[in-house]
Amino acid sequence: MQQPPPNQHALPEADQPAWLLELARLLGPTGLYVPGLNASEHDLQPHEQDWRGRYRGKALALARPASTEEVAAVVHACGAHGVSIVPQGGNTGLVGGGIPDGSGRQMVLSLQRMNRVLAVDPANLSMSVQAGCTLAQVQEAAHAHGLLFPLSLAAEGTCTIGGNLATNAGGTQVLRYGTARELCLGLEVITAQGEVWSGLSALRKNNTGYDLRDLFIGSEGTLGVITAASLKLFPRPASQVAALVACPSLDACVGLLQMARQALDAQLTAFEVMARLPVALVEKHLPDTAQVSRSLNAPEWTVLVEVSHTRAHEQGEALQALLAHAISQGQAVDAIVSQSDAQRQAMWALREAIPMAEKAEGLMVKHDIGVPTSQVPAFVRDTQAALAQSFPGHQLVCFGHLGDGNLHFNVGAPVGREAKAFVQQHEVRINHVVYDEVARFDGTISAEHGIGQLKRDELAQRQSPTALALMKAIKQALDPLNTMNPGRVL
Amino acid sequence: MQQPPPNQHALPEADQPAWLLELARLLGPTGLYVPGLNASEHDLQPHEQDWRGRYRGKALALARPASTEEVAAVVHACGAHGVSIVPQGGNTGLVGGGIPDGSGRQMVLSLQRMNRVLAVDPANLSMSVQAGCTLAQVQEAAHAHGLLFPLSLAAEGTCTIGGNLATNAGGTQVLRYGTARELCLGLEVITAQGEVWSGLSALRKNNTGYDLRDLFIGSEGTLGVITAASLKLFPRPASQVAALVACPSLDACVGLLQMARQALDAQLTAFEVMARLPVALVEKHLPDTAQVSRSLNAPEWTVLVEVSHTRAHEQGEALQALLAHAISQGQAVDAIVSQSDAQRQAMWALREAIPMAEKAEGLMVKHDIGVPTSQVPAFVRDTQAALAQSFPGHQLVCFGHLGDGNLHFNVGAPVGREAKAFVQQHEVRINHVVYDEVARFDGTISAEHGIGQLKRDELAQRQSPTALALMKAIKQALDPLNTMNPGRVL
Repeated sequence: MQQPPPNQHALPEADQPAWLLELARLLGPTGLYVPGLNASEHDLQPHEQDWRGRYRGKALALARPASTEEVAAVVHACGAHGVSIVPQGGNTGLVGGGIPDGSGRQMVLSLQRMNRVLAVDPANLSMSVQAGCTLAQVQEAAHAHGLLFPLSLAAEGTCTIGGNLATNAGGTQVLRYGTARELCLGLEVITAQGEVWSGLSALRKNNTGYDLRDLFIGSEGTLGVITAASLKLFPRPASQVAALVACPSLDACVGLLQMARQALDAQLTAFEVMARLPVALVEKHLPDTAQVSRSLNAPEWTVLVEVSHTRAHEQGEALQALLAHAISQGQAVDAIVSQSDAQRQAMWALREAIPMAEKAEGLMVKHDIGVPTSQVPAFVRDTQAALAQSFPGHQLVCFGHLGDGNLHFNVGAPVGREAKAFVQQHEVRINHVVYDEVARFDGTISAEHGIGQLKRDELAQRQSPTALALMKAIKQALDPLNTMNPGRVL
Repeated sequence: MQQPPPNQHALPEADQPAWLLELARLLGPTGLYVPGLNASEHDLQPHEQDWRGRYRGKALALARPASTEEVAAVVHACGAHGVSIVPQGGNTGLVGGGIPDGSGRQMVLSLQRMNRVLAVDPANLSMSVQAGCTLAQVQEAAHAHGLLFPLSLAAEGTCTIGGNLATNAGGTQVLRYGTARELCLGLEVITAQGEVWSGLSALRKNNTGYDLRDLFIGSEGTLGVITAASLKLFPRPASQVAALVACPSLDACVGLLQMARQALDAQLTAFEVMARLPVALVEKHLPDTAQVSRSLNAPEWTVLVEVSHTRAHEQGEALQALLAHAISQGQAVDAIVSQSDAQRQAMWALREAIPMAEKAEGLMVKHDIGVPTSQVPAFVRDTQAALAQSFPGHQLVCFGHLGDGNLHFNVGAPVGREAKAFVQQHEVRINHVVYDEVARFDGTISAEHGIGQLKRDELAQRQSPTALALMKAIKQALDPLNTMNPGRVL
């Protein structure tokens, strides 16, 4: 964890640099918080640390621009005065990408005041929004037009769509609708030079030069600041049915997934897995939430499968038929199909309670890995074996988005050992074991959480030299002064 | 049209540069064709001109490498000797992106010998292929595993998947499955420095640094050479039903599209429109092919709508219900639903016969434009009005992928006037009128065909200075010597 240096920057007005005073005048009293000038330490603090308490820094100031032009002015002024910029959305990230360093020399640029829905175009199935809209706000604006913006993740009430795009967020609906990248039609971006790139296209097809949009998506604020986005919408499902399925093995889960894709086609909207331990942890710490799965009798693996359709009462039968067939083929041993929307939501609550139950159990070494879906069973088997050799008795909390080959693969202390001490002592070696196996299966060390500060060194070690050289050339070309979120990703 | 200079480069062996002889030894007699050394003019000619006869150049030599390493060797050697490279797939492009200039100093690099399917992974719904596989070959390899690779376009028997990705090809299934970009999971690319970037990932989610994959996709060979790709597969539909629908107006077509999306969800796999004139041209020049639409009595607009499902006999009823509802609402006036796969294919044959019928009618000024779907009726109305002012009596062949907002919008001479003379005289002004309207509707001058040589100047004029500056910075960073397909795109 970084320790902030003593605060040396809370200067009275007379000692503030002229450009900062000028910027403060331009943005107004709610647009730029400068400690000692118009703000206290207290005002900046929520923006200087992450919610997990892993990163804590010290900002020069906090910019809260209200328009694209104001963002451009901040970027321009900072660039001219050698001050680097840390863009920040809802500050819900997991890898320290939006937290300033401890130097007291970085500008935190919060997009939270840019939270307007700009337009909804139902006939084009698209909408445009400012970057500071929360994901929930975007979902609701679509909903108000009878449409669906399908990106969905735990932090959706707080995280912003700009942050979702800057980190290419995933979540629970990727299997059917894709990641944030695939849901974006266009962007408006302030470049490192403070120029506005107006790429807010609402087109499905556009082959006019290089794909700037996808270069900015997932670049974690290191190439520019996303100020607005044009997004894909979908018809809203009129009916959704979920099932919890008991599977005898992870191989059986993969077999069931294949059967489900064939039988349900694009109606299959989610396929999540949970090993026995994460479900047991929910039973232990949140027993009411675990109630929904009780009749399955603690299977080795529990699958949450969901089908959706824009026509009401469309897919219950297809799902029932699929599950009966899967049981007859030995891919499943038991199943519960939701009989109401409340029961469906209870199934999701079980799945979504895992991180909280895990936290209640104690600290763990967390991973957000991805391998080809077909390789998931072998990966889990081999990695568990490798971990068992070095860390006998370790606990493995394994769950996630099997339909995307993306697992949360979290390693904790053996029963009876102190969790925090175990993590502190073994984190580096556990990462090494897990990421070596990921590499062996042509996987990724960050499927949906990004790189930020947390995995930068790991990326530098594990990415191919050619890929790194290409990325560094792009960074150098677009941000030659290295003012955009330096020290993140690369 | 470019005229090749007199051939000054067919030198006997003694006069060939040493590096070229060395490269010829490395690649073997079928790997490098050098005029005067081991090849005649005749061998190179098919690679020096496009199939429409619009571009004709003169190559220094034709490289036909058989492996990734050989591609790297060609790129490396050419870079070291100031020879630029024109990558070429099936040479089916429409914008001159794969044709050498007339200097006799460019190396054409054909990927056609790299045509192996590397692996199919049904449980991951993915496959990896070399870049020189034809699209049809990729489709067939998926089909052999009971799966679908959905990219589909007229040139599929000849075009290569490498070319499809380099140009981000579209086609008739984009509405449901996306463009080539959205169907690609990973790439192997030879950089301008002759290095191999092994990005053949088969992952659905991977957030480890900048999105190099999407930067190379659609860059038309100007940043590197795609040598292999990892592709998404889908369950293969077991049933497909199509309908031809007579609509009273383009507004009604858009209304029908919205109804179809809501009623059919992801089962909707195509939504094509044809104005009256293109259907009439098929009736005139290919009367047998037009037979399928006769009973509709020449409507203002004909829609081809298709639904697919992995379950057999799934969607006929839903489509029938949709069309009955559309007729009751005035969005449609009549419809024919396919009663057999032969009839479905006959409907597609009508749609796909339009370019041939158009060609039989005479030369036209062609456009591949896109606007938001909701704006299509207003765009067509306004552009027709603007054209009518300057070119009274002009014929407009308007058809295309309404579901993607992508129209082929081709302007021909008034009846009785000589087509070629009209095109030669008015092409520049017609483009000006059409592209001004495209800009007014926030559209694109190239929805699916790319930029190549044909639209480079238009792009430079119409793209924003900020976007152009970003693209040029990327080009300069990744290809500082400008050896990769120079003069294309930028």
